[in-house]
Amino acid sequence: MKSNNVKILDCTIRDGGLVNNWDFSVDFVRDTYEALNAAGVDYMEIGYKNSPELVDAENSGPWRFCEDRFIQEVIPEIKTTKLSAIVDIGRVNPDHFAPQSESPFTMIRVACYLKDIDKGLDLVESFHDLGYETTINIMAVSNSINSHLVDALQKIEESSVDVAYVVDSFGSLFNRDIEHLVNLFKQYAPSKKLGIHTHNNLQMAFANTLCGIDLGVEYLDTSVFGMGRGAGNCQTELVLGHLTASRYDMKPILKLIDERFVPLSKEVEWGYNTAYALTGLFNEHPRSAIAMRKTEGKDQFYNFFNKLTSVETHLDIK
Amino acid sequence: MKSNNVKILDCTIRDGGLVNNWDFSVDFVRDTYEALNAAGVDYMEIGYKNSPELVDAENSGPWRFCEDRFIQEVIPEIKTTKLSAIVDIGRVNPDHFAPQSESPFTMIRVACYLKDIDKGLDLVESFHDLGYETTINIMAVSNSINSHLVDALQKIEESSVDVAYVVDSFGSLFNRDIEHLVNLFKQYAPSKKLGIHTHNNLQMAFANTLCGIDLGVEYLDTSVFGMGRGAGNCQTELVLGHLTASRYDMKPILKLIDERFVPLSKEVEWGYNTAYALTGLFNEHPRSAIAMRKTEGKDQFYNFFNKLTSVETHLDIK
Repeated sequence: MKSNNVKILDCTIRDGGLVNNWDFSVDFVRDTYEALNAAGVDYMEIGYKNSPELVDAENSGPWRFCEDRFIQEVIPEIKTTKLSAIVDIGRVNPDHFAPQSESPFTMIRVACYLKDIDKGLDLVESFHDLGYETTINIMAVSNSINSHLVDALQKIEESSVDVAYVVDSFGSLFNRDIEHLVNLFKQYAPSKKLGIHTHNNLQMAFANTLCGIDLGVEYLDTSVFGMGRGAGNCQTELVLGHLTASRYDMKPILKLIDERFVPLSKEVEWGYNTAYALTGLFNEHPRSAIAMRKTEGKDQFYNFFNKLTSVETHLDIK
Repeated sequence: MKSNNVKILDCTIRDGGLVNNWDFSVDFVRDTYEALNAAGVDYMEIGYKNSPELVDAENSGPWRFCEDRFIQEVIPEIKTTKLSAIVDIGRVNPDHFAPQSESPFTMIRVACYLKDIDKGLDLVESFHDLGYETTINIMAVSNSINSHLVDALQKIEESSVDVAYVVDSFGSLFNRDIEHLVNLFKQYAPSKKLGIHTHNNLQMAFANTLCGIDLGVEYLDTSVFGMGRGAGNCQTELVLGHLTASRYDMKPILKLIDERFVPLSKEVEWGYNTAYALTGLFNEHPRSAIAMRKTEGKDQFYNFFNKLTSVETHLDIK
């Protein structure tokens, strides 16, 4: 397995924040940082770094904004594990960012839909000019038209971005799809390093991540206990347990799971279930499954299938 | 995807019986048969067909023995979905079997460890002579020495068995392992059809099954809602939802899940968790994880890791 150049980016607090509205205590996040650092994980994505005035925050926790001064208080000493944050098109003002040399963050990642690729790459240039490592994460790539993706990749190739991510937002991709996409990324953005971000709707998150490694993808998004939106992400502990690189150690993550994530998993729900499998099979955003899991009919998968395949709007999950 | 010749063998009642000591009601099993038949599933493995006098039964349900007369009462009319049962070396007397023409069973599968391959193939010949379709399922193949496996495959090639199964008893195999094994099976038992039976310890059950299909494996073991020992099996509903063959329909299985398997899953535990991932990573039988999940420390994965890697016996899970 070509895992020598692999870097693990744990996005638990960021993607997991979509489950609990970023309601993590400072101690919870500190413990997560210490465990990731002890495990040798390369990056911790500690949240979104959107601008509060551009977001309808609805009592979100501070990890949705990750202001530098706050993060410096939470993690006064950046150890081996570097910090990253992600930003969304239209929800962030890059003028508010300090130069990287004055910030606790090493990397800023830009998430955008394919139609916003120009805006996304404009943001990338701003962060690049400030000295940050940058990535571009094109969401919902499973719904993109091939020629549009090729156009975007050509723009990515001409940009300053460091890493281009294959993002399986809907958890609908299989190994052969990962292979197709990675080969397309390699063909049209040959100078860029590649990353992969998976969701576990079809129990393919880990398998697709391994497929990425085999194809030379270097940046692997993972999350502790799989915590992430809907079906969640590829488990950090599985990747750490599988990779033979001696700098990685899964034990600190197991301790963190026992002390922090098992209790949390009894309060809020994430991870594979049949509803997420269905939105994955239909290559759809998981929002209808997330909504359905909050109703009394949370276990009525047959009914959910019928709503998904109804000619009427299926977002009205009752 | 080369899925034209694929046959789905649902082993829910058989492998799931290892979870609840085969304590399924007749109505539960009937509903399962009707749903599998409506879904177009090719075979239903309705249990073990071991001989009661050779088994320490411990109040097991009748699906551990599957006597012909009993099964005929449960399922008076065999429809499209054929019935299979599995037997174990040393726990079955083939003299007690009726000819296939007088039995509700179409297929008898023989499970054995590599060391018992001669005994296993002797049983196969008995059942073949009685007119049954037969398979040989070599368990724990991930722990076998390559040359021993080659010897066994050469014997399989010379036998009357119809299907040779790659069985990932410990759920420890990855795609590349499946590829290695399938190629070995093809090389040394070229005239045999191939099957695959996976476990989900590393969330690879579905991915490995798909890998098998790509390599030309025809017989796919699955189970409804993944019900099977420990981390469970590849989900029937995922395979049905993924395959495009028009004879398959996942909807009857979703209905069965809602009515039967969701309630059951709240009474007994099966499916992926971190303890099973650890025995999978260490390529071990899941018995220590199964025992650990029945203790008060069921969520203490760090402690479990330490026991697994201790120089002292680790089966003494307290």
